[in-house]
Amino acid sequence: MAQQDRAIRTRRVILESAAAVFDEQGYDRATIAEVLERAGVTKGALYFHFASKEQLALAILQEQVVDIAVAPQPIKLQEFVDSGHVLAFRLRTDPIQRGAARLAVEQGSNHLDRRQSMLAWSQFVEALFNEAKGRGEVLESVDVRDVAELFTGAFAGLQMMSQAFSNRADLSHRLTVFFQHTLPSIAVPAILAKLHLDAERGEKLNAELQQKAQSAAGTGTGLDVVAS
Amino acid sequence: MAQQDRAIRTRRVILESAAAVFDEQGYDRATIAEVLERAGVTKGALYFHFASKEQLALAILQEQVVDIAVAPQPIKLQEFVDSGHVLAFRLRTDPIQRGAARLAVEQGSNHLDRRQSMLAWSQFVEALFNEAKGRGEVLESVDVRDVAELFTGAFAGLQMMSQAFSNRADLSHRLTVFFQHTLPSIAVPAILAKLHLDAERGEKLNAELQQKAQSAAGTGTGLDVVAS
Repeated sequence: MAQQDRAIRTRRVILESAAAVFDEQGYDRATIAEVLERAGVTKGALYFHFASKEQLALAILQEQVVDIAVAPQPIKLQEFVDSGHVLAFRLRTDPIQRGAARLAVEQGSNHLDRRQSMLAWSQFVEALFNEAKGRGEVLESVDVRDVAELFTGAFAGLQMMSQAFSNRADLSHRLTVFFQHTLPSIAVPAILAKLHLDAERGEKLNAELQQKAQSAAGTGTGLDVVAS
Repeated sequence: MAQQDRAIRTRRVILESAAAVFDEQGYDRATIAEVLERAGVTKGALYFHFASKEQLALAILQEQVVDIAVAPQPIKLQEFVDSGHVLAFRLRTDPIQRGAARLAVEQGSNHLDRRQSMLAWSQFVEALFNEAKGRGEVLESVDVRDVAELFTGAFAGLQMMSQAFSNRADLSHRLTVFFQHTLPSIAVPAILAKLHLDAERGEKLNAELQQKAQSAAGTGTGLDVVAS
């Protein structure tokens, strides 16, 4: 069991190191050698978990969506807004999210399929919106697929702009503006009046998520955290 | 005069060739040699107009905003919507716009300042919105700067997503969805009711713009077209 824990931790260290290298260098310039140096692991340890640079990149793109789910809320659209603010906060602090963002945005001279990441986010948002619509939170006229793709694509651009101008310090504000200007045409008025769209939630919710993950880790294995 | 015309045409051919190379290869992989081959000009001709690869890229980023202004309309917000649709159309067909889009989106392992392009677009949108607000088309509560940056950042992401999924064939539709979900919180109701947000306008307006440019070129020099 302890050995399994160690393997999980090693895998995570490698992923985070690779994500940081992708964030700084981009996919094409990133090298396995640099990932090894940053992670402080042997070539054998890395290749035990990941067969290639491409496998590393795909694992990072898969990891990002799992990472962001917030606690269920009475209003589903609030859960959606909160997830956005947690993501905005993570993009400032979390190497996995930062690396994934660059991988998803780069136009492929590499052969990575950027669409996987965008599809995963769209499906995440679409599922939340479908649930919200089922509960009567969303206006009948709203096309859930269209709106899910709108949020995914627009957010990708907003985080990119924020990265260029402020290293993402202003991303929470930009996201709040986006919510303020789109949710009035999506939420029914009685729900809209109850939503908290402000930017302060990201940091607080992120701290709660991390505390929950840590206390779960204290009573079980890393695997339990992932499964819970 | 004929010589000056030729120089303007040569400059344009070089710019379009460079933009196509940037679009396909990205900034880092693009080479002057490939631009020369595609443009069919000599090294001397290229260096007469542009001192370096960086100068080529900066010229393309400057060109893109000039290219998009549509004819003045009685409703300024319609002018804004129309400019967006022309841009969406051009991103499918115009090498300058395609190259500029990739240059603006790439995270800099190159030393290009991507912010120049985003700033230019934000200022273009902000000027239109300020004029619209002065005419009473925009709700008092709207922060024009915030909204201008929202449109710029979100559009960058939407065109990127559309590029990945459909080589931008679905961009006009994505832009229409974006307008439908943001303009109700921006335009006053009497203006909102008059706006045409649909995607068919892009191709028609683009054809009108090109016809106007061609007939101007018929009666004067290339310089007149740029200045008019």
